Amino acid sequence: MVLSIAHLGPSGTYAEMAALACAQQLQAEIKAEIQLCPYPSIIQTLYSVAERQSQLAVVPVENSIEGGVGVTLDTLWQLDVLHIQRALVLPISHALLSCATGLENIQTVYSHPQALAQCQGWLHQFLPNAQLIPTNSTTEALQQLDQDVSTAAIASQRAAQIYGLPILAYPINDHPDNCTRFWVLSPEVAPQGSHTSLAFSIPANLPGALVKALQVFAERGLNLSRIESRPTKRSLGDYLFFVDIEASLDTETVQAALIDLKAQTEMLKVFGSYCIYNIEPCNTESRFN
Amino acid sequence: MVLSIAHLGPSGTYAEMAALACAQQLQAEIKAEIQLCPYPSIIQTLYSVAERQSQLAVVPVENSIEGGVGVTLDTLWQLDVLHIQRALVLPISHALLSCATGLENIQTVYSHPQALAQCQGWLHQFLPNAQLIPTNSTTEALQQLDQDVSTAAIASQRAAQIYGLPILAYPINDHPDNCTRFWVLSPEVAPQGSHTSLAFSIPANLPGALVKALQVFAERGLNLSRIESRPTKRSLGDYLFFVDIEASLDTETVQAALIDLKAQTEMLKVFGSYCIYNIEPCNTESRFN
Repeated sequence: MVLSIAHLGPSGTYAEMAALACAQQLQAEIKAEIQLCPYPSIIQTLYSVAERQSQLAVVPVENSIEGGVGVTLDTLWQLDVLHIQRALVLPISHALLSCATGLENIQTVYSHPQALAQCQGWLHQFLPNAQLIPTNSTTEALQQLDQDVSTAAIASQRAAQIYGLPILAYPINDHPDNCTRFWVLSPEVAPQGSHTSLAFSIPANLPGALVKALQVFAERGLNLSRIESRPTKRSLGDYLFFVDIEASLDTETVQAALIDLKAQTEMLKVFGSYCIYNIEPCNTESRFN
Repeated sequence: MVLSIAHLGPSGTYAEMAALACAQQLQAEIKAEIQLCPYPSIIQTLYSVAERQSQLAVVPVENSIEGGVGVTLDTLWQLDVLHIQRALVLPISHALLSCATGLENIQTVYSHPQALAQCQGWLHQFLPNAQLIPTNSTTEALQQLDQDVSTAAIASQRAAQIYGLPILAYPINDHPDNCTRFWVLSPEVAPQGSHTSLAFSIPANLPGALVKALQVFAERGLNLSRIESRPTKRSLGDYLFFVDIEASLDTETVQAALIDLKAQTEMLKVFGSYCIYNIEPCNTESRFN
């Protein structure tokens, strides 16, 4: 049996690093052969699992600097068939890759918009005149580097190693505590864990509707580790709320809270209960590729 | 006296359309000469007003499909000197611009990531094999079009008019009710209006802390028209909450709620009280440029 893990590709992205860490965890737990499957977008990554082309998807949910990844939350709500199996927290440490001999020769910097945003202070200080060009992934940013020595890209140290590109500066993040949380998803109902994630919509224009919904957790002493609003896409001012609770779905307290919550909300979707693992960046080539 | 309005440029962006609508409103109210000043980023647009190089900034806050504009909220919190003067809601209607003779010849589509996301269903249906390339603005996407007939860009009808480019398809948004809310900001304390916006941080890991903060509004029958969380950038799981209330800052109810809120929060910043105006897309050349 081959277990395939879908992630945002190509090889060298942070999503691939998280997928590799997930593969290493699973290798210790199950006997299957594991294969990583890169997809060109987060939406395609999630659909590949919903349509059973892959068994698991590893997708970013939230970065500690740039915030939530809207497309992940929106697609999860729309699909309504995926369950969270575990969460992985990956420290993010960006490097400036370039074939230039020094910073003074760099005129253009390519990277994913989140990576450009996470290094904006460094870029403003050391490359104030460089043009910043967004790309679909940190790996895609590497394409021009060996043809044009006036260009640079922001990516991981691992990407530099895979593609044989020189690192001009490292680390270049503005905030040292930069990390990204990923969810590992599959169509199977999740085992229980320390955290539970769900989302709901509430009647629009009803004063206190959100407070009433959140109160079902507060009055039971359940801590919310996160709340994020996303547009319903029906009209401006109409939202879904994504909530993480620090408790397992199979506790009586959470079950009672969810019964109350159902009465306070228009639509309620529970994405599962799971544990959070801190993982280390992986700098070496892997046998899972 | 010249009143300058900063916005994300270059000419042809939706932000410029909102700035033009703002200029037209102001023209009817004051006697000053009005000038639009395009900036290459939202951050630079906001800093230009904080540093008194421009009098007003017009920046996007939220799109009805893609959600909040994190960089606007983050910069507003950091600067802590700008006040909201008014809000403008602009309907967003995207066109596909290209010098190609038909859709079958298009291999690449350029646009701002938000515009690409807002048309993803249309692109998937009509250009399933096209490569999607992000750009810094919808206007920047137009640069290659006249040199390469295998490329297209997503931008407004107005951009097509300004740059003399043919429209191949219109409208191509997936959701007809697509609109973007802009804030008009200046260092001056705002006049009063129908809505009040503020942001606060709460003690981390205290169950019910967010509920207690929101309760100060619910128990007074004050409706929240929006709540959005943003990372504090200190550590994962530590948030700021941006809240819009449907009431004026100078009412006794709001004043009392804010006194209570101060006791429940770590840090509280009030961005002002203002009115919301629905504006029309502007398709003609303007004398404010």
